[in-house]
Amino acid sequence: MKNVTIVGLGLIGGSFALALKKTGLAEKLIGVDTNTNHQIEALELGIVDEIDNLKEAVLRSDLVVLAIPINAAQKVLPEILDYIPTETIVMDMGSTKAGICERVKNHPNRKNFVATHPIAGTENSGPKAAFAELFLNKVSIICDPEESAPSAVKKVKKIYQNLWTNVSMMTAEAHDEHIAYVSHLSHITSFALGQTVLNIEKNEKAIFDMAGSGFESTVRLAKSSPDMWTPIFIQNRENLLNAIDAYEEQIKNMRRMIEEANPENIHQYLSNTNDIRRILNKK
Amino acid sequence: MKNVTIVGLGLIGGSFALALKKTGLAEKLIGVDTNTNHQIEALELGIVDEIDNLKEAVLRSDLVVLAIPINAAQKVLPEILDYIPTETIVMDMGSTKAGICERVKNHPNRKNFVATHPIAGTENSGPKAAFAELFLNKVSIICDPEESAPSAVKKVKKIYQNLWTNVSMMTAEAHDEHIAYVSHLSHITSFALGQTVLNIEKNEKAIFDMAGSGFESTVRLAKSSPDMWTPIFIQNRENLLNAIDAYEEQIKNMRRMIEEANPENIHQYLSNTNDIRRILNKK
Repeated sequence: MKNVTIVGLGLIGGSFALALKKTGLAEKLIGVDTNTNHQIEALELGIVDEIDNLKEAVLRSDLVVLAIPINAAQKVLPEILDYIPTETIVMDMGSTKAGICERVKNHPNRKNFVATHPIAGTENSGPKAAFAELFLNKVSIICDPEESAPSAVKKVKKIYQNLWTNVSMMTAEAHDEHIAYVSHLSHITSFALGQTVLNIEKNEKAIFDMAGSGFESTVRLAKSSPDMWTPIFIQNRENLLNAIDAYEEQIKNMRRMIEEANPENIHQYLSNTNDIRRILNKK
Repeated sequence: MKNVTIVGLGLIGGSFALALKKTGLAEKLIGVDTNTNHQIEALELGIVDEIDNLKEAVLRSDLVVLAIPINAAQKVLPEILDYIPTETIVMDMGSTKAGICERVKNHPNRKNFVATHPIAGTENSGPKAAFAELFLNKVSIICDPEESAPSAVKKVKKIYQNLWTNVSMMTAEAHDEHIAYVSHLSHITSFALGQTVLNIEKNEKAIFDMAGSGFESTVRLAKSSPDMWTPIFIQNRENLLNAIDAYEEQIKNMRRMIEEANPENIHQYLSNTNDIRRILNKK
């Protein structure tokens, strides 16, 4: 590709830009960001070659990548499709997919759009958090591929594969339902854990001195960006509430077992759950 | 020290033995374990120099280290104190401290015992999981130090410091109350999350293909040993139920906010919880 525009120069967009550079997939990276500090940082860090405004950038690009919070992406995508050149592809990288697909489903240029979700990230944000290897050996989902031009889907799939990212296809609805359990729910459990211990800390200043690597691991996602996660939680509300209900049920189960203090029951529950090891090792 | 006996050749005991060897703090490591496979593995891996039965080992040791599940430690400690040589120290490494201190509080040789909890571990278990660096830059708690001989406390503190482990002192009650929040609760949240997703997986085989590093981080502790964690949950039941109640309150808060879908409220909650970053970075 000659020109690629990255809209949103944070962790995800910045890392994608760096990976495209590293693999020689793009000749020139054009950055678009409403945050002036992020523009400057992205140039300084060599994430993009130049900064432009959205429309000018789109008009001279082969590929446009939306890596901004999902509410912003849903606002800007229909506008981009209004003036997108015939051969240009626009892809998003948001963590919910039904909303954005619904938003443009009747747009005459819907075929130029490919809905994707690379399942990769860290708890950090901004251009400084970006690194080229973020997508290595991760999975990216392409949703509702039949709504996009076959050549566009093929191209986006090939880009991900060139970044050593495995690609799966599914409907936007299936994506949002599944991701509620294996990503969005994890963020809920981490934020709730962080808030619980912060509340206790008000009276017990020394408590964090006792926090070990296990606590850090389970609470890590509570450092995640509120700008990114607020719209995700709201958009995927319906699936997420189901996931939270199922989770609360398990917390209640454990609470009851601990109250009853029956070692056989607790041991059995923990042993059953150890099965997660088998499944994660398969990946 | 000439001879050190390690009772329990798993992750914790094995790692402690390897660290004592690496730093030259012990001339000979004697292993005690009821599991014959663990005995053989520990010898093969060079974790201990020989295997012996408990009483013979204790009678010729300067230090005895209990690194077995807390219910087993509470059973064996009074017996060891019955025949422990005058100058020998016995320390435990269990994750709850009030129970074991209560168990031996009136024993005539209570002063030979030092109650400790090194806040270190991984989700793995057994001799093969052991590594010398486990305790490096971690924190170890010594509980109720005034109940032990001052020379014994001094010696145990010095050993931990030689392993580059920071030492804090507190009462067994304070330890158990705090650790419920920053360690035991994290295990509850992980096991509940693991169980929730395993239940969904029964119908949705592909769901784990979509699990990213965030899910793996929050669910990691669900791989932990049921033998170790069942007695911890039961022994620290009272504190842990309080911690679970506080946590359930936060899950309910998040659930309600998501149901109401007010972005300002959610954003505020997530931003407040980001404060965990400041605290963990201080460590």
